[in-house]
Amino acid sequence: MTTPTRIGLAGLAVMGQNLALNIAEKGFPISVYNRTTSKVDETIERAKVEGNLPVYGFHDPESFVRSIQKPRVIIMLVKAGAPVDQTIKTVSVYMEKGDCIIDGGNEWYENTERREKQITDLGLLYLGMGVSGGEEGARHGPSMMPGGAFEAYKYIEDILLKVAAQVPDSGPCVTYIGKGGSGNFVKMVHNGIEYGDMQLIAEAYDVLKSVGKLSNDELQQVFLEWNKGELLSFLIEISADIFGIKDDKGNGYLVDKVLDKTGMKGTGKWTVQQAAELSIAAPTIGSSLDSRFLSGLKEERVQAAKVFKSIGVSDILTDQGVDKKKLIDDGPELARIWKGGCIIRAVFLDRIKKAYDRNPELANLLVDPEFAKEVIDRQSAWRRVVCLAIKSGISTPGMSSSLAYFDTYRRERLPANLVQSQRDYFGAHTYERTDIPGSFHTEWFKIAKQSKI
Amino acid sequence: MTTPTRIGLAGLAVMGQNLALNIAEKGFPISVYNRTTSKVDETIERAKVEGNLPVYGFHDPESFVRSIQKPRVIIMLVKAGAPVDQTIKTVSVYMEKGDCIIDGGNEWYENTERREKQITDLGLLYLGMGVSGGEEGARHGPSMMPGGAFEAYKYIEDILLKVAAQVPDSGPCVTYIGKGGSGNFVKMVHNGIEYGDMQLIAEAYDVLKSVGKLSNDELQQVFLEWNKGELLSFLIEISADIFGIKDDKGNGYLVDKVLDKTGMKGTGKWTVQQAAELSIAAPTIGSSLDSRFLSGLKEERVQAAKVFKSIGVSDILTDQGVDKKKLIDDGPELARIWKGGCIIRAVFLDRIKKAYDRNPELANLLVDPEFAKEVIDRQSAWRRVVCLAIKSGISTPGMSSSLAYFDTYRRERLPANLVQSQRDYFGAHTYERTDIPGSFHTEWFKIAKQSKI
Repeated sequence: MTTPTRIGLAGLAVMGQNLALNIAEKGFPISVYNRTTSKVDETIERAKVEGNLPVYGFHDPESFVRSIQKPRVIIMLVKAGAPVDQTIKTVSVYMEKGDCIIDGGNEWYENTERREKQITDLGLLYLGMGVSGGEEGARHGPSMMPGGAFEAYKYIEDILLKVAAQVPDSGPCVTYIGKGGSGNFVKMVHNGIEYGDMQLIAEAYDVLKSVGKLSNDELQQVFLEWNKGELLSFLIEISADIFGIKDDKGNGYLVDKVLDKTGMKGTGKWTVQQAAELSIAAPTIGSSLDSRFLSGLKEERVQAAKVFKSIGVSDILTDQGVDKKKLIDDGPELARIWKGGCIIRAVFLDRIKKAYDRNPELANLLVDPEFAKEVIDRQSAWRRVVCLAIKSGISTPGMSSSLAYFDTYRRERLPANLVQSQRDYFGAHTYERTDIPGSFHTEWFKIAKQSKI
Repeated sequence: MTTPTRIGLAGLAVMGQNLALNIAEKGFPISVYNRTTSKVDETIERAKVEGNLPVYGFHDPESFVRSIQKPRVIIMLVKAGAPVDQTIKTVSVYMEKGDCIIDGGNEWYENTERREKQITDLGLLYLGMGVSGGEEGARHGPSMMPGGAFEAYKYIEDILLKVAAQVPDSGPCVTYIGKGGSGNFVKMVHNGIEYGDMQLIAEAYDVLKSVGKLSNDELQQVFLEWNKGELLSFLIEISADIFGIKDDKGNGYLVDKVLDKTGMKGTGKWTVQQAAELSIAAPTIGSSLDSRFLSGLKEERVQAAKVFKSIGVSDILTDQGVDKKKLIDDGPELARIWKGGCIIRAVFLDRIKKAYDRNPELANLLVDPEFAKEVIDRQSAWRRVVCLAIKSGISTPGMSSSLAYFDTYRRERLPANLVQSQRDYFGAHTYERTDIPGSFHTEWFKIAKQSKI
C-alpha cells in the first residue's frame, strides 16, 4: 500500500467487518484494525472473497492510524462502555489536530457527550453515530444517525451517502442528526420502537397460534400475505422466513425449539427511563420491555404454570371455536395501528412524514385527520382481538396498553380529577378547577368529618 | 427554657409542623426552626392551641441547635434536592461529633448516600427516613422508614416508636430499614405502589361513572360499602369522602369541578426508572405514571376529542345498558387483586406477610396457594370489567396491564421465542433451545433464501 486510505475502522466483530466491506465496496479504500488480530486477517480474507475489495489490515494501532489520509476519520464498532474508552485511548495517541473519531455503537448519549468534551480537548472531533439494520444492513446498506461535530460529518458525508441504504424517491438513509449525543439518542429511541414492534408481532403470533390454532405453515402464509400489503416490512418478512425453517437438530420447526427468553442490550431500557424522565407516555415500549423481563423468568413461569394447573387452570382459558379467517383478517387492520412506530417500513414512514408536512405543529399522529380516520376504521377489530385474548387468558400487553393510550389520549375528561382530589386530601397538593382559574386547596377531611357528625 | 429539648426539627411547612406537634404530644420536648421565621411563630401558636405542647421555637439556627440535648438529633422536613443541602449546611456548623441529621423528605436514595458520606467526614451521623401518611399521618401517626446509621436510629428509636401509627396486633409502623439510602428507596417504592393504587381506584370510578352511570351519591355509597369489607383502606375511605363534598363555589359536587390533571413529585417516575434498571416488570406503576403524564396533556386531549367527534366518534363508544348491580359487585372482587400493593391496608398487608412467613422463598405473591386461589376465583370478573371498558372505549391501563402481567407470569411458554429468533436473524444475538443446552446461532437468512430458490 503506497497511498493512504480514505478512512479507518476499528472493531471487527461481524457488524464492523460488514460495514468495512460495505465502505470498500462503494469505492473507498479502508484501513481496519482489531485488538485480537485474527479478526483483521479474517476481514482481509473476506474482502478478497467478496470481490477483491480495497480493505487494508493492520495488527498495530500506530500503523493503522498513520495509513489513513488526513484529516483522519476512524469509525469504532466496539461494545458500548469501557471498550469505547479503551479504543479511543489506543488510537487517539497517534491522531493529529482535526482528525475525527466516530462511535458507531449503541452508546448512552451522555457518554458520547462526555467523550466529545475529552476529545475536543485533544484537538480532535467526535461523532456518535447510531447504525441500524443489523449485520445484513451493515453489509449492504444500513440506516445511520450521526450526531456531534458537523465539521466531522462533512468529512465523510460522501462516504455515508453511498454506504447507506438507498430508498427510491427518498434517498440515502442517513442525515446529520444534530449536536452532542443526539445521534445516539435518536438511535436509542429507534431501538425502543423496534422493541415495541417486535412485541406486537409476537402477540399477533401468540393469538393466531394459541387461540386461532394456526400451524407454522399457516402462520408463514399469513405473514407472507401481510407482507404483500401495507404491513410490508423487514420484521414481518423475517418472521415469515422464521416460520418456514425446519429444525436441523430434530423434528419439526426451529422456532418451536427456541427458548422463550428474550435477551436485551439496554437501549430499550434507556428509552423507557428517558421517556419517564421527559414526562412522555410510551406504553407500547414500556410493555415490550416488561415482556422481555418476564420472558427471562422462565423458571418462575414454569413453576407458576404448575401452581395454576394444580388448581385446574390451564394456560389457555377457553377454547372458543374461533373463526380463523376472521382472526387473520383482523391482524393487518390492527397492525396498521400498531405500526405507527415501525421505522423500517418505508411506505408507512412516508405517510408519517406527509402528516407532519401537512401540519408541522401536529401534537400527535393520532389527530392527523387521515390517521384519525384510519384508526377509527380499525378500532373495532383492535378491541375485538384484545378482548378475545383477555378472555382466552393470552396476554397482549403491547396491544392493550396501546389501546389504553389511544382511549386515554382521545378523551377530553379523565378520572384524573379523583386522583388529584385524593392528593389534595392527603397531601394538600392543591388542584385546579375546570371553571375558575387558579390553584385551590380544600379541607376535604374537615368537611367530611363535619358532615358525618 | 432551661433544660435542653430532646430533639429538633427544621422545615416547618405543614408536614414539618404536624410531625413536630406529634412528637411533642408524645412527651418529647422539641426545638423547631424555619428559615422563614413566621412559620416558627405559627408552629408555636398551634402548639399552644392544640394542648400546650412542649414545642420551642427559634429564629436563628445557632440557638436552635444549641437548645437540643446531646447527642443532638435534627429532623429536616424540607423539599428534596438543594434545600436539603442548604439546611444541612445551616445546622451542621453548630453540631458536634456524634450528633445526627435526619432527612424526612422524599429524597433520591443516591443523594442520601452522597450526603451520608459528606456528613460522616464531619463526624456526624445521617439517616434518610421516608415518612408516609400525609399531613394527617404526620400529626397523628405516620409510617416511617429510617435508613442509614443504625447508631443514629437507636438514639431516637423510643421517639419513633411512640410517634408512629399504632396498629393493634402489629405494633408501631416503624422499623430500621437498613444502611445507606435504603429508607428512601423503600419510601420511593411505597409511593410508586401508591400511584398504582390511586390509578386503579380512578379506573374503577371511571367505569362505574362513565359506563355504569352512577351518580356521586351512588359512588359514595359503593365506596362506603367497599370500605366495610376487605377493601378497607385509607384511599377507599377518602374517595368516599370526596364523592360527598359539595362545591363551595357553585352547584353540584366539588370532585366534578376538579381539573383532570394529576400532579406528581418524582417518586413514581423514580420507581419506574429503577424497576427498569433492575429488570423488574412493574406494569401497574408504569401505566399509572403514563396516565399522569397523559392527564397533564389536557389541551391536547381536548383537541383530540374534537377531532374524533368531528368524525362521529364520541368518548363513550357504546351505551350498553349495563347491569349496575353486577358492575358494582365486580368492583371489590377486582380490587382484591389490584390491591396486592396497597401498603395502607393493614388487613391485607398482614396476609401478604403470612404468605411470606409460609414460604420465605416465595418467588411471587401470585404463586402462594392462597393468593393463587383467590386470584382465580376473581379472574372472570376482572376479565369482564376490562373487556367492558375496552368495548366502551374507556381506558383502564392499570387494570389491563396488571391482567397482562398475570397472564404473562402464569404462562409456561411465551411468544418470546419468536422475538429471540428475530434477534438472532437480524443481529446474530444467538438463542437457547428448549431441548438442548447451549447457545445457538442459525443463518436464518441464508436458509430462507436457499429454500426460496
